[in-house]
Amino acid sequence: MKETKKIVIVGAGLCGSLLAIRMAQRGHKVEVYERLPDMRKTPLAGGRSINLALSDRGLKAIKSAGFKEEILEECIGMDGRMIHSINGEERFSSYSGREGERINSVSRTGLNITLLDKADEFDNVNIHFDSKCKHIDLDNAVAEFVHKGGKAITVKADVILGTDGAGSIVRKSMMARTPELLFNYSQNFLRSGYKELEIPATDEGGYRIEKNALHIWPRGKFMMIALPNLDGSFTVTLFHPYEGEGGFNTLNTKEKVVDFFKKYYPDSLEHFPNLAEEYFNNPVGMLGTIKCYPWQAFGKTLIMGDAAHAIVPFYGQGMNASFEDVRIFDETLDECNDDFEKAFQKFQEIRVHNTNAIADLAVDNFYEMQDKVSDEIFIRKRTIEMKLEQTYPDYYSKYSLVTFQEDLPYHEAMIRGRKQDELLLKICSSVDWDTIPIETIYEQVKQLTI
Amino acid sequence: MKETKKIVIVGAGLCGSLLAIRMAQRGHKVEVYERLPDMRKTPLAGGRSINLALSDRGLKAIKSAGFKEEILEECIGMDGRMIHSINGEERFSSYSGREGERINSVSRTGLNITLLDKADEFDNVNIHFDSKCKHIDLDNAVAEFVHKGGKAITVKADVILGTDGAGSIVRKSMMARTPELLFNYSQNFLRSGYKELEIPATDEGGYRIEKNALHIWPRGKFMMIALPNLDGSFTVTLFHPYEGEGGFNTLNTKEKVVDFFKKYYPDSLEHFPNLAEEYFNNPVGMLGTIKCYPWQAFGKTLIMGDAAHAIVPFYGQGMNASFEDVRIFDETLDECNDDFEKAFQKFQEIRVHNTNAIADLAVDNFYEMQDKVSDEIFIRKRTIEMKLEQTYPDYYSKYSLVTFQEDLPYHEAMIRGRKQDELLLKICSSVDWDTIPIETIYEQVKQLTI
Repeated sequence: MKETKKIVIVGAGLCGSLLAIRMAQRGHKVEVYERLPDMRKTPLAGGRSINLALSDRGLKAIKSAGFKEEILEECIGMDGRMIHSINGEERFSSYSGREGERINSVSRTGLNITLLDKADEFDNVNIHFDSKCKHIDLDNAVAEFVHKGGKAITVKADVILGTDGAGSIVRKSMMARTPELLFNYSQNFLRSGYKELEIPATDEGGYRIEKNALHIWPRGKFMMIALPNLDGSFTVTLFHPYEGEGGFNTLNTKEKVVDFFKKYYPDSLEHFPNLAEEYFNNPVGMLGTIKCYPWQAFGKTLIMGDAAHAIVPFYGQGMNASFEDVRIFDETLDECNDDFEKAFQKFQEIRVHNTNAIADLAVDNFYEMQDKVSDEIFIRKRTIEMKLEQTYPDYYSKYSLVTFQEDLPYHEAMIRGRKQDELLLKICSSVDWDTIPIETIYEQVKQLTI
Repeated sequence: MKETKKIVIVGAGLCGSLLAIRMAQRGHKVEVYERLPDMRKTPLAGGRSINLALSDRGLKAIKSAGFKEEILEECIGMDGRMIHSINGEERFSSYSGREGERINSVSRTGLNITLLDKADEFDNVNIHFDSKCKHIDLDNAVAEFVHKGGKAITVKADVILGTDGAGSIVRKSMMARTPELLFNYSQNFLRSGYKELEIPATDEGGYRIEKNALHIWPRGKFMMIALPNLDGSFTVTLFHPYEGEGGFNTLNTKEKVVDFFKKYYPDSLEHFPNLAEEYFNNPVGMLGTIKCYPWQAFGKTLIMGDAAHAIVPFYGQGMNASFEDVRIFDETLDECNDDFEKAFQKFQEIRVHNTNAIADLAVDNFYEMQDKVSDEIFIRKRTIEMKLEQTYPDYYSKYSLVTFQEDLPYHEAMIRGRKQDELLLKICSSVDWDTIPIETIYEQVKQLTI
């Protein structure tokens, strides 16, 4: 018989909430501690992205927990990218040549609330809000929190799971033990940041621009994107450098902001009723990648999700990778018959190469999205990729391997995807690219040694 | 006229001492604060490597300061590697095919003392020992120290230079300002550590093994090396994994240690009078790489040496890279007419790719030294490299580019060296490798596009 463990989860964000549900479903006693107040009672302050793209990897993890259909009802499907050129033209580029392969815009808060409600349905889950983690005693699996009133809380656990995000205190407790753990760590920031704006719904509650698309205004050194919300609005994100042309530090007056939009994002201007006010009210966020290893300490504590691998948002995979962590960890516990120490070791070993891969792919996509999507060679490549996907059921582009092949580990998707890209870009750079029969290209793809 | 600046240097190790001398020679007022007691009065506790390889990059920096010949008198030249096979055979492999290209074994403490003495000769240098850095106020260039008695010391400077080593407090003060500085940072540890031993001099004060060589006992997953000291002794370093065969945690009884040496390092055994005692008295050190960027903050503080780029010791370039930092920084100040803010920016931009390169090369050499030096293909490659260096004055192997081409930036040495290695390894893998005329190989090397 499996032993029931007392599991402390640090952080009740997206990853922690889903993890709590799965650990409860396994029959363990789960205590979740969250720094912030209960978002179902207190509206959150800004600073986090408001909507996210949920795709097949995330959905597969949610399906294991048993409520995929319910979650899909909260989503708006996006079938491709709507690319807005500087002269106001729109060009739609499908995510896949196959029907039904789409990504889903979902509210971060809405999804988190659903997960918290689901977790609350379990008698063996308790969620403690307003409890900020101060330190983890890794030798003894004791977690130390401070409640918002100032009261110290000390909890002894059998197992501590840290899902406390990119600024993870659990990870910092591990880093403080660098010599014993030989703790590898890196943080790398892009020289661009992000700022969110809103395109409101029409007065009738409709969508001002195409609903079922992820909108991009790619401009080389900077870009703007927009994802739809259920209420008819869009959450818009500017990805701009800090300095130079379009830099957040350069656009420092209302006039400069409006002039900049007139010049670079002219077709969007009519959709922003309060552009300049909003621009100066909203903060600039950082875009960084965090990698580390090991993820477990002394067989008692494990970090997962952004705490273990924070990535930039340009592949729409941050949340999906975190949810996939939960699924893979769950399956690893199956294989290890709930021997957590054994599962920790196995999980980190099989998982780290995959999260490192999606981290690198996401940085690559930063350059692709803001620059290459309007490049002629890149457009040719998308044309061929669409044709291949429409013709051959077993062909998946790099994007599709990552996004729609939820059983393929990220690392394999990266290796195969990059080789395919290299081949297709070579083909698309030739003068006679559009005279090569699609079956010839398919044969060449099939012959790639991965 | 150049303005005289008050410069605070944090750390009076090898890099900090040489830097103090150069800044004093430029006419600035230099205050150096060192955590440890004055090593000229108090013998240091162990934990640092006892001797080091000083080569042309380091010597060039010392030459700028004006006392290269004096330092060379403290050195023992090493003309190549003496490779000890498991059956007791010795094979000498020269570092260069050219005469006079050698590296120099020098005592870390001896060299540091010489540099401190030289620094003390300047009226405009003050060195404060027993003063541990606690924090740097980066906005105001204020450095905070605690003297060993407990007294707090606060020093306002025009410029702060952090040369406080791999565990740098100055760097930590910068990392604490991650959002403003977009501070990139990585620490990566090898799954091997090191432990030092000593081969004493003979009773007559002579050398028990060849004096003018760096000795290596390469054994695949672990190795031992030895460098000569002036007193006839050798400082020996074991580089072993923590776990598994030969692991520091596996060799946990005196019997196991002696048995291990009998099996793997049999020819060395007679030279260790107190092997087992020494083995258990001496600590195991970590082997890690630290990279970060930026190196400067707000135009007032700059880190250099191990504080900015700690590397593993397998290219013998750690100290040399730090000394080269001092030379390049000095030259950058010349170009910027002692505008420190401008020089900080320029220095970090030109230097970081080079120190990243030597960091990566040093990790590569870890695998080369412990494993490949006894590999047949590798030995063939060294044979060809020697012949090329003996025949063509403008040919330098990768090792020679890094070690003996002190004017070539590390990054260029890496790019060229790796391309050459790739070509030569391909040639050496062919059956008829030894029938190819040397001029043919030289022509192929010349045609490499770098």
